[in-house]
Amino acid sequence: MEEAEKLIRITAIEEVGEIAKLDINRYLRTGIPEIVLAEGKCPEDLLEITVKALDKSGRVILSRVDNAQFELIQRSIPSDAVYEVNRRARVVVIKNKNFNFESHGGKVGILTAGTADIPVAEEARIIAHEMGCKVFTAYDIGIAGLHRLFPPLKEMIQNDVDCLIVVAGREGALPSVVAGLVDVPVVAVPTSVGYGLGEKGISALMAMLQTCSLGIAVVNIDSGVAAGAVAALIANRVAKFRKNI
Amino acid sequence: MEEAEKLIRITAIEEVGEIAKLDINRYLRTGIPEIVLAEGKCPEDLLEITVKALDKSGRVILSRVDNAQFELIQRSIPSDAVYEVNRRARVVVIKNKNFNFESHGGKVGILTAGTADIPVAEEARIIAHEMGCKVFTAYDIGIAGLHRLFPPLKEMIQNDVDCLIVVAGREGALPSVVAGLVDVPVVAVPTSVGYGLGEKGISALMAMLQTCSLGIAVVNIDSGVAAGAVAALIANRVAKFRKNI
Amino acid sequence: MEEAEKLIRITAIEEVGEIAKLDINRYLRTGIPEIVLAEGKCPEDLLEITVKALDKSGRVILSRVDNAQFELIQRSIPSDAVYEVNRRARVVVIKNKNFNFESHGGKVGILTAGTADIPVAEEARIIAHEMGCKVFTAYDIGIAGLHRLFPPLKEMIQNDVDCLIVVAGREGALPSVVAGLVDVPVVAVPTSVGYGLGEKGISALMAMLQTCSLGIAVVNIDSGVAAGAVAALIANRVAKFRKNI
Amino acid sequence: MEEAEKLIRITAIEEVGEIAKLDINRYLRTGIPEIVLAEGKCPEDLLEITVKALDKSGRVILSRVDNAQFELIQRSIPSDAVYEVNRRARVVVIKNKNFNFESHGGKVGILTAGTADIPVAEEARIIAHEMGCKVFTAYDIGIAGLHRLFPPLKEMIQNDVDCLIVVAGREGALPSVVAGLVDVPVVAVPTSVGYGLGEKGISALMAMLQTCSLGIAVVNIDSGVAAGAVAALIANRVAKFRKNI
Amino acid sequence: MEEAEKLIRITAIEEVGEIAKLDINRYLRTGIPEIVLAEGKCPEDLLEITVKALDKSGRVILSRVDNAQFELIQRSIPSDAVYEVNRRARVVVIKNKNFNFESHGGKVGILTAGTADIPVAEEARIIAHEMGCKVFTAYDIGIAGLHRLFPPLKEMIQNDVDCLIVVAGREGALPSVVAGLVDVPVVAVPTSVGYGLGEKGISALMAMLQTCSLGIAVVNIDSGVAAGAVAALIANRVAKFRKNI
Amino acid sequence: MEEAEKLIRITAIEEVGEIAKLDINRYLRTGIPEIVLAEGKCPEDLLEITVKALDKSGRVILSRVDNAQFELIQRSIPSDAVYEVNRRARVVVIKNKNFNFESHGGKVGILTAGTADIPVAEEARIIAHEMGCKVFTAYDIGIAGLHRLFPPLKEMIQNDVDCLIVVAGREGALPSVVAGLVDVPVVAVPTSVGYGLGEKGISALMAMLQTCSLGIAVVNIDSGVAAGAVAALIANRVAKFRKNI
Amino acid sequence: MEEAEKLIRITAIEEVGEIAKLDINRYLRTGIPEIVLAEGKCPEDLLEITVKALDKSGRVILSRVDNAQFELIQRSIPSDAVYEVNRRARVVVIKNKNFNFESHGGKVGILTAGTADIPVAEEARIIAHEMGCKVFTAYDIGIAGLHRLFPPLKEMIQNDVDCLIVVAGREGALPSVVAGLVDVPVVAVPTSVGYGLGEKGISALMAMLQTCSLGIAVVNIDSGVAAGAVAALIANRVAKFRKNI
Amino acid sequence: MEEAEKLIRITAIEEVGEIAKLDINRYLRTGIPEIVLAEGKCPEDLLEITVKALDKSGRVILSRVDNAQFELIQRSIPSDAVYEVNRRARVVVIKNKNFNFESHGGKVGILTAGTADIPVAEEARIIAHEMGCKVFTAYDIGIAGLHRLFPPLKEMIQNDVDCLIVVAGREGALPSVVAGLVDVPVVAVPTSVGYGLGEKGISALMAMLQTCSLGIAVVNIDSGVAAGAVAALIANRVAKFRKNI
Repeated sequence: MEEAEKLIRITAIEEVGEIAKLDINRYLRTGIPEIVLAEGKCPEDLLEITVKALDKSGRVILSRVDNAQFELIQRSIPSDAVYEVNRRARVVVIKNKNFNFESHGGKVGILTAGTADIPVAEEARIIAHEMGCKVFTAYDIGIAGLHRLFPPLKEMIQNDVDCLIVVAGREGALPSVVAGLVDVPVVAVPTSVGYGLGEKGISALMAMLQTCSLGIAVVNIDSGVAAGAVAALIANRVAKFRKNI
Repeated sequence: MEEAEKLIRITAIEEVGEIAKLDINRYLRTGIPEIVLAEGKCPEDLLEITVKALDKSGRVILSRVDNAQFELIQRSIPSDAVYEVNRRARVVVIKNKNFNFESHGGKVGILTAGTADIPVAEEARIIAHEMGCKVFTAYDIGIAGLHRLFPPLKEMIQNDVDCLIVVAGREGALPSVVAGLVDVPVVAVPTSVGYGLGEKGISALMAMLQTCSLGIAVVNIDSGVAAGAVAALIANRVAKFRKNI
Repeated sequence: MEEAEKLIRITAIEEVGEIAKLDINRYLRTGIPEIVLAEGKCPEDLLEITVKALDKSGRVILSRVDNAQFELIQRSIPSDAVYEVNRRARVVVIKNKNFNFESHGGKVGILTAGTADIPVAEEARIIAHEMGCKVFTAYDIGIAGLHRLFPPLKEMIQNDVDCLIVVAGREGALPSVVAGLVDVPVVAVPTSVGYGLGEKGISALMAMLQTCSLGIAVVNIDSGVAAGAVAALIANRVAKFRKNI
Repeated sequence: MEEAEKLIRITAIEEVGEIAKLDINRYLRTGIPEIVLAEGKCPEDLLEITVKALDKSGRVILSRVDNAQFELIQRSIPSDAVYEVNRRARVVVIKNKNFNFESHGGKVGILTAGTADIPVAEEARIIAHEMGCKVFTAYDIGIAGLHRLFPPLKEMIQNDVDCLIVVAGREGALPSVVAGLVDVPVVAVPTSVGYGLGEKGISALMAMLQTCSLGIAVVNIDSGVAAGAVAALIANRVAKFRKNI
Repeated sequence: MEEAEKLIRITAIEEVGEIAKLDINRYLRTGIPEIVLAEGKCPEDLLEITVKALDKSGRVILSRVDNAQFELIQRSIPSDAVYEVNRRARVVVIKNKNFNFESHGGKVGILTAGTADIPVAEEARIIAHEMGCKVFTAYDIGIAGLHRLFPPLKEMIQNDVDCLIVVAGREGALPSVVAGLVDVPVVAVPTSVGYGLGEKGISALMAMLQTCSLGIAVVNIDSGVAAGAVAALIANRVAKFRKNI
Repeated sequence: MEEAEKLIRITAIEEVGEIAKLDINRYLRTGIPEIVLAEGKCPEDLLEITVKALDKSGRVILSRVDNAQFELIQRSIPSDAVYEVNRRARVVVIKNKNFNFESHGGKVGILTAGTADIPVAEEARIIAHEMGCKVFTAYDIGIAGLHRLFPPLKEMIQNDVDCLIVVAGREGALPSVVAGLVDVPVVAVPTSVGYGLGEKGISALMAMLQTCSLGIAVVNIDSGVAAGAVAALIANRVAKFRKNI
Repeated sequence: MEEAEKLIRITAIEEVGEIAKLDINRYLRTGIPEIVLAEGKCPEDLLEITVKALDKSGRVILSRVDNAQFELIQRSIPSDAVYEVNRRARVVVIKNKNFNFESHGGKVGILTAGTADIPVAEEARIIAHEMGCKVFTAYDIGIAGLHRLFPPLKEMIQNDVDCLIVVAGREGALPSVVAGLVDVPVVAVPTSVGYGLGEKGISALMAMLQTCSLGIAVVNIDSGVAAGAVAALIANRVAKFRKNI
Repeated sequence: MEEAEKLIRITAIEEVGEIAKLDINRYLRTGIPEIVLAEGKCPEDLLEITVKALDKSGRVILSRVDNAQFELIQRSIPSDAVYEVNRRARVVVIKNKNFNFESHGGKVGILTAGTADIPVAEEARIIAHEMGCKVFTAYDIGIAGLHRLFPPLKEMIQNDVDCLIVVAGREGALPSVVAGLVDVPVVAVPTSVGYGLGEKGISALMAMLQTCSLGIAVVNIDSGVAAGAVAALIANRVAKFRKNI
């Protein structure tokens, strides 16, 4: 009887195990690359994960990489891999020599309120680019200096972007302003810029969630990866139909 | 001299005042209707706003309406207006008799984890519908009972929805699960369901922001309005190009 | 091509759908009954869920039930169902006339620090009882009056309980004290008793998580349901082997 | 010896007691009236305080008054006192028949982002008015509808206001926008409007503290009293010198 | 009289002092070893505690050891002691040469969601092992990659584990998923992995406390020690009866 | 063997049980009466506890009593008990006809910053009085009106109080001011007066903990009971030696 | 049709772009200099911003500068610029040789409670000075040592300051005390001094927001820049009329 | 007229200035020494303060001193001063050669739960000692090992201590246990020991404020200074009368 029970349990788990392939299929279909959060991993573990991912998918993206991690990886990965290192964004993209990069046609615009928001914006840009989008950027367009906003925003609208990523710290008001001027969805990214009450991005995150402007959705503080991925997903879905015209 | 300065200040503000029209234009272009947060407004103020908005746009949506507010409005609005009242969602839609409703072709799917999440989902559904989307819903598909998820999700994918809204309280895990199964963007909505540490939707919101799944963006706790609007914006942008095929 | 892709997506979801049965099987195997959180649900929804669950499993437990919910359910459920109503714990257990209650042999002891903790303890007691455990209780054994602790604790150890649930509010020290005296696992339940800094159970929860005593695991504030279920699971696993002796 | 010590202690306290008159003098000098926070006081206590203050200064302002408090006071205060009751702001101003109201010439402008912010703005308006300022108001000028901002703001600048009070809830961005357009100091007041993360005015307060715009200082959430008083102090100091021209 | 009172007080305390032995007995009975939190202790104090504990019990476990502490201890402890050093888990186990290790037969399975969770899992593993359990581990089985979960989970169930420890950071969803698949109690351990709102393990902890899945109890963030101890206590209690079969 | 183990466990607990008397002795020695927190207890439970305590000690104090609780108790307690009811403080003191009240000679002064702090001060006063202290009170001496502070403070020092309780809400500055003027220990009690950031007594509690003034210790927000008890303990210890002079 | 829509969108944005000049005008009018938050910017970015700002306005102020940033700037800026470096305040002011500094006549007083508050006060002083104010300072006047407050405060009043900046950490009571003694507006600045509950300036900020004293407005924790700017704006507005006398 | 007003203002402040001496008198009377929080002060400022205080009072105590600060002071203070340096407590006591140390006779006992709490306890010990108390200490008496509590506690009671300081981190339960055993007031000090939810002393602080035990008052996290001062004040007041016997 007890053995029977155990058998049932195991069978159940096996059935579920069958869905494993689904997950792999999804990456192929959607073009979301393997992205590994390096932060909190010891360099040896990160290297092992990197090698496996590279083996499996031909490309791996490491985010929030520190120097020790980067050095070990650089020393250890076969020299025929292609590296792109963005120290500001702390992102490393590694591709096998023969990795087949595919463009999907989505168009994403990225704006930052300040200079200190650029690392997060760059993280988002790399993800959206690696997902096959065309990315337009305009950094440090300020809030106190709104006049810097209009020329690049105008250019992005003329280029018919499908989705805007707006990155801001402190009071985090830029996404609300932008969403009031355009008719494409805005992905808002709070950054951990500022000090005092509301520091570490809390104030910016709250403002983006409390916004009176409609057409905004939010990702976590400093999460350029999440912003890049969801914006590229939106843009590529639009592009799928645009291509058919 | 001082007078000159004052003149400069006033002129500057007048220039800015010119942009007023922009805001009105935006509503016409994007199809985002006038949505009024009734909560916190005294019934008399709400009535006045409602009348003005109805006058200006021919349609107004009131969210988080309480009984006292609703009664005053119902007594006072000309009887030839068309009412739709959703008591569960606490939403009232009022249209002038000859309001010209326009379909934009976007397709939005809405899922909820539990029964208690339905009011928020309904709020989102009404907004997306009023923005001219076709909306598919499947409520109470649970996490503890994932088997209820698959039939409606399959149907939504077969109907080729452009965006999914996933509504969940407590641990807020459903959006992560859904985002792992589909390749359309997911708008996650935390609800103030649950008690103890993380109550009032805080736990669900955090989980949705911390999620390892990519392709998710979040709106504020219980904010069906924000979710409906951004999802409809995404879906309608896709639809614009689909229509041209 | 696009059709093919859609096909792949749907197939994938169907495969996953196959695991639905697993979830149902689990309930049968583990003896965890259907437990519905009534709080936050409108009475009509709760009734519908109750009827369905009763139909499917022959028994349903409703927690955190308010008066309006209870009245509607009582009016609407066929009169041949068996009711157990615990107003203090705000729990209602409903069973079909011919529901086959099964004892599993686990032994669970429940202690509370104060009188105000009793509703939560009762909630846990009902869950553990419905999962087929023998439950021993001793309420209001205090901290300021530790002398009340020893007689019932001694009796529980003599009865060889497999797991203790210890319920406490305010500074939440009782689980630490108890865990220092016994060698069975302690499930600690903080309650929302007390006022000032640390009110609503936060202080008790933190103390239980920060405890220097080993052998303690914690459930959420006021969550008698979670405590009863995990304690019964522990006790019944022990009982499975005890029965075989 | 001990007696000597006690003597020293008492003498010291007596010296300090001499400063008592200072406090009374201050109210005469600055024109800040007696303002009593009614909230949290039982009606009988509030009545007693009101009578004493009226006796001493000829005028008393009660803020955050509830109905029970108001009824008792109205029943009990001699009928020849002059009442001004603002139910929206929950403020009651009571003056002796022969109270000598003095104008000080300061000019204060008050703007609110939404309709729900009006009670707080009205509270500020009454305080500034009672401190002898000329007050200009423009309510519900929105953020999503900035075009409503410019006409009243222009008018206020033309009227040469000395200080602006800007009241806003939710993301609290209006003070930042206004401070970017004018060259008078802005007193920002967050209100407890909005729901979800950052509710109860927390998000608005943080945004006002984190603002990139310079020229802003902040008072506590919903504190129209504090805003009115500091703005009137600023404006009246300016007026003191303007009068001399 | 006063002397009498003092006598009573001292007598009372002496009576209580008699229970001292109880505490020592408990360690012998339950097999919970001496575990010392090294963090926050200066190396000299830690050394002194270590020597005493080793003397008394023949074995001591140090958790969260930093390099300075470890070096001093290594230099100072007699060379015939047996060391096990786990740098990843920052745990040091020291045993006297003739320490008599005893197996108790409990079976504990440990799963982690990610690579960064491994140090906490290792801490738990060492504790459960030192308490005489057989421990099965499967690390980095992901959430985004659920397919990695099933093979090791199946193996653990086939090995008939008595309790599962599930370690996860960020949104902390793995314990809920696992508890939905098995019928043994789950001890959930949140880890301080992730960044942004809910960082430092807060999001994971809340999700584990708010979970809809039943059969889960939680320990504090990063507390592998607490998880290992309570899981071993559960497993060893089961084993006591299993051995008798 | 197993039986032997169980025996050891039970014996250990019995030994501990012996200390029960200690706790009772303590109440006799220190004069701290039985104080029951009524809040959160159902009236029936409260009645039962009250009867038992009255029986055991001849006196019971109930704090934070609501109307329903009070009515049931008044209806049910034998008419020869002596009641003192303080509705403002929500405290009820019940004594048996022949309860022997004992004075201990300590002198406690109580000051409040505002009128709204009086209920908490009264709670403290009753406790200190019931512990046999002579209590001096001065309420509503303000911060904005410091001149009201000096006369009563002078009187208290002249009366040679042993300890001061200082009760304040909002910014909670009064204890710091008082501690700077006197050389007796100050027990600071924050109250839940005020609104906005820092409401519910949080701001006052933090200010009292962060104070630069030395000679202050703090109890929880609104906890007149804790303040009264510790102040009386201090004062009575002083009095013990003063009496001997 | 679609092209027409795009045209409308772009035109709208262009109109808004016209307001760019406004922002530049404002700086000229109000005398608020370019202030750059150095914190969080990489040295290269900061240098670029500095050069541009210097070019445009002839003066730039950098706040919260670290050593690496300062060194790069010092090495790179043409040697004919004029530097003022305040290491304590971490502020650098750089002016072109021929920058035309203008005095506006406002008078600002700055007080600090402690020595550790001086860096924030210095930051405020530099801003107010650069905005053309005459600044009076008195640092470390304490709370525990109020006697140090009166001489400098008296001197400031004799000098007829228009606005006071009061800087304090820990319990943050100094602004309340000062506002009770003077009739000029007080700008309160909490500092991140202190440890324990309420650390990082939270306690001081809350006390300043909760204050019973009227005439106080607050800026964010440690934000000398915001305090200096708003105080100078107030003082210069007064001075504008004083000059005309 | 304006001049007259200014005169009144200055006179008022002068009157207040007269109380300056009071503050100095207080230190002489109460024996509370000059204690300077070194943390957050630059070494040069600290040196200056130290020299002044030494000059004025003949003794100064520096708390939370870091190495850089200590080195500068040691190099700069005249060599005939007497140093006591406690590196664990980070406290430095400096006295002039001819400083006249006075004993006041109060007796204070200090207990710590763990080894990591010792630095805070030592800080308290030094303060109480410098205030002329006799201090008894017993460190690391644990909670998990209560048997270590009784011998030293018994000894302290036999020595008739007037006040107990109980220092504890993590769940902070020791003060509650001790207060249940003795009849002297307990000053509870939470320490920033522990990790996870409730870390940094928050859990311990909350437990001490929420405690069911009466006779406890609390100081801020890690604040040995505040605990030592208030305990010494209590003990010395008792001693004043004891000496007269």
